[in-house]
Amino acid sequence: MKKTRMLTPGPTPLPENVRLSLAKDMIHHRKPEFKKILQDVQKGLQYLFGTQEPVLILSSSGTGAMVAAVNNLFSPGETVVVVEAGKFGERWTEIARERGLKVVRLEVEWGEAVEINKLSDVLEKFKSIKGVLIQASETSTGVLHPIQEVANLCQKKGIISVVDGISAVGISPCPMDKWGIDCLLTGSQKGLMLPPGLAFISLSKKALEKVKTIKQRGFYFDLLKEHASILKCQTAYTSSINLLVGLQESLRYFRECGLKNIYKKQKALTEMVREGVKLIGLELLALKDYTWGLTAVKMPAGLDASKVLSILKEKYGYVLAGGQGPLKGKIIRIGHMGYVDYVDLAGCLYALQKSFVQAGGVSGARNFIERAMDIYFKTLEES
Amino acid sequence: MKKTRMLTPGPTPLPENVRLSLAKDMIHHRKPEFKKILQDVQKGLQYLFGTQEPVLILSSSGTGAMVAAVNNLFSPGETVVVVEAGKFGERWTEIARERGLKVVRLEVEWGEAVEINKLSDVLEKFKSIKGVLIQASETSTGVLHPIQEVANLCQKKGIISVVDGISAVGISPCPMDKWGIDCLLTGSQKGLMLPPGLAFISLSKKALEKVKTIKQRGFYFDLLKEHASILKCQTAYTSSINLLVGLQESLRYFRECGLKNIYKKQKALTEMVREGVKLIGLELLALKDYTWGLTAVKMPAGLDASKVLSILKEKYGYVLAGGQGPLKGKIIRIGHMGYVDYVDLAGCLYALQKSFVQAGGVSGARNFIERAMDIYFKTLEES
Repeated sequence: MKKTRMLTPGPTPLPENVRLSLAKDMIHHRKPEFKKILQDVQKGLQYLFGTQEPVLILSSSGTGAMVAAVNNLFSPGETVVVVEAGKFGERWTEIARERGLKVVRLEVEWGEAVEINKLSDVLEKFKSIKGVLIQASETSTGVLHPIQEVANLCQKKGIISVVDGISAVGISPCPMDKWGIDCLLTGSQKGLMLPPGLAFISLSKKALEKVKTIKQRGFYFDLLKEHASILKCQTAYTSSINLLVGLQESLRYFRECGLKNIYKKQKALTEMVREGVKLIGLELLALKDYTWGLTAVKMPAGLDASKVLSILKEKYGYVLAGGQGPLKGKIIRIGHMGYVDYVDLAGCLYALQKSFVQAGGVSGARNFIERAMDIYFKTLEES
Repeated sequence: MKKTRMLTPGPTPLPENVRLSLAKDMIHHRKPEFKKILQDVQKGLQYLFGTQEPVLILSSSGTGAMVAAVNNLFSPGETVVVVEAGKFGERWTEIARERGLKVVRLEVEWGEAVEINKLSDVLEKFKSIKGVLIQASETSTGVLHPIQEVANLCQKKGIISVVDGISAVGISPCPMDKWGIDCLLTGSQKGLMLPPGLAFISLSKKALEKVKTIKQRGFYFDLLKEHASILKCQTAYTSSINLLVGLQESLRYFRECGLKNIYKKQKALTEMVREGVKLIGLELLALKDYTWGLTAVKMPAGLDASKVLSILKEKYGYVLAGGQGPLKGKIIRIGHMGYVDYVDLAGCLYALQKSFVQAGGVSGARNFIERAMDIYFKTLEES
């Protein structure tokens, strides 16, 4: 017996109560029973996003919500700055260009967070910039950008901050209203412990006013239509009903545990993995500003990460992710968001060291699992 | 004890094996296990669509696939004709206008199918027309349009036929290649017996060539990107994984039963409901060209359908749908597609008559349930 353990940075494993709720028979999306679920889910999403504004529900992947944000907030010809620090930063650029926006790319070394001064300089230089597109957590590198400062800067400049919170919301703090974020979005398959297929997006009052000025926002991703619908406890089109039933379960968990405790767990898991990886003798990609839902581990030059990944899967049952773009073959990404605990990670550290050595790497580490586990509990207690 | 029976024209009830498969734990969408599922699903979808072309998979509602069809097949400024015979015909018009197309509306009385001569006349009159947008089955009225003839006509004229098969595919014959349909699409929550959240769309070679000439097809609904992905057993973005696992189950059922037998069952259920409704003394909305997945029943003038629907639900446990747009309050729609059998419908006929009388209608029908059930088996045997 060898259980498969999927520790990828999304999708993430599903808790049993969520899985069972996904198996429920269909209900109709225009009937009172479903409206009650939407109403309950709405409260949970507002708590999760830290906002008083409605959180709109889209039946799409997270990329759909990114497209919705760009097409509803900006008109062709407008200028935006994209913080490009990885694959998902690049995706912002692609989406913005498809929309016909002028894109100022603020390129950041993959593995590093944007420096707020550099963003400030760009905003000074290009006065026509109408918004900043950024990730809270860049899933391709495991970097956490300074969103509070970015939102703050945008507020001062009177421009729109658009934050892809796909691997951040429900994982590390990103309170929309408190930080003054204008548009925050996420997907269902990361911190929320659901299958992919739903995306969530919320707009500040300022952002909503801007959306009202935009023509040709798109038919499927029309945030004004969704905004009007959600106020009536509906979605504009037929939504992914069983995922919404699952979402109700998952959000109940967030409310019962409390966001703060979930963040604590995420932080402690992150410190545990980082400690373990260092003890194994491997290097971390993100040294300073690291996200709390995944950890990117560098492979030594000449050692193909895919070889390690393959042993991890075949021999130890651990499904991890490799690198994307220029990092393909060079890193391993350990996902530890959502329904993942310290024991899942302890086994993962063991499997990582063994697979690394079997793939030709050198590591004589001993006692690293216990020491990493100790860090988990120490971090929990200290926070 | 009173079981709730949902007989709406989508979403539809889910078979147990589908529901249990939806509860499976997550797998990763870029790993071999998932690719195998996609490969298997692809064969099943091609069988369902009656096509040799790839069937593209979108994570969205059916409306998303309608948007994808319009935005990928036509450029702003091009002219299309829309067959508007109900709410979903109107939706084609809205989507086409949002895309900036010139729309020639061919309005058809709600409850009737388009006459092929009238469509032919329109195509003669407006030489600039590049495509026809139509429903196979108009879900708001229960009408079946003559798709084979429409596709044929489009072939002759060298224009693109775009068929919304949302309440037709897997319910009544609509073989894409045989009939020469250029673009056929459907959603997961009708004949396919799945929750909503997935949409499927396939393009003829001619249609694919046209897509290649279109700029700004959209970022999320980019059919060229999806076409390239599916050839590698992938989807362009993270897809609704658990729905795809459920789809594999549902398509297995189609292959095991055989499409012809499923159509037979659908036809027999339709004749059963129509017979029962007539015996109750109620009128059918679609007299001639009726679809096989739902039946729209007229309420006598002065009797509000919502009153009947409410009794059906509260007293008898039957969840049916009302009318949309101008038919609101005037009709009841009985869904009998997907995981619905003749016993479900027998109870529905009983409940319909009783609820109708309790809401103030007059019906002295007797023995109508047996006679309707007899029609079911007679139709099955004769077909």
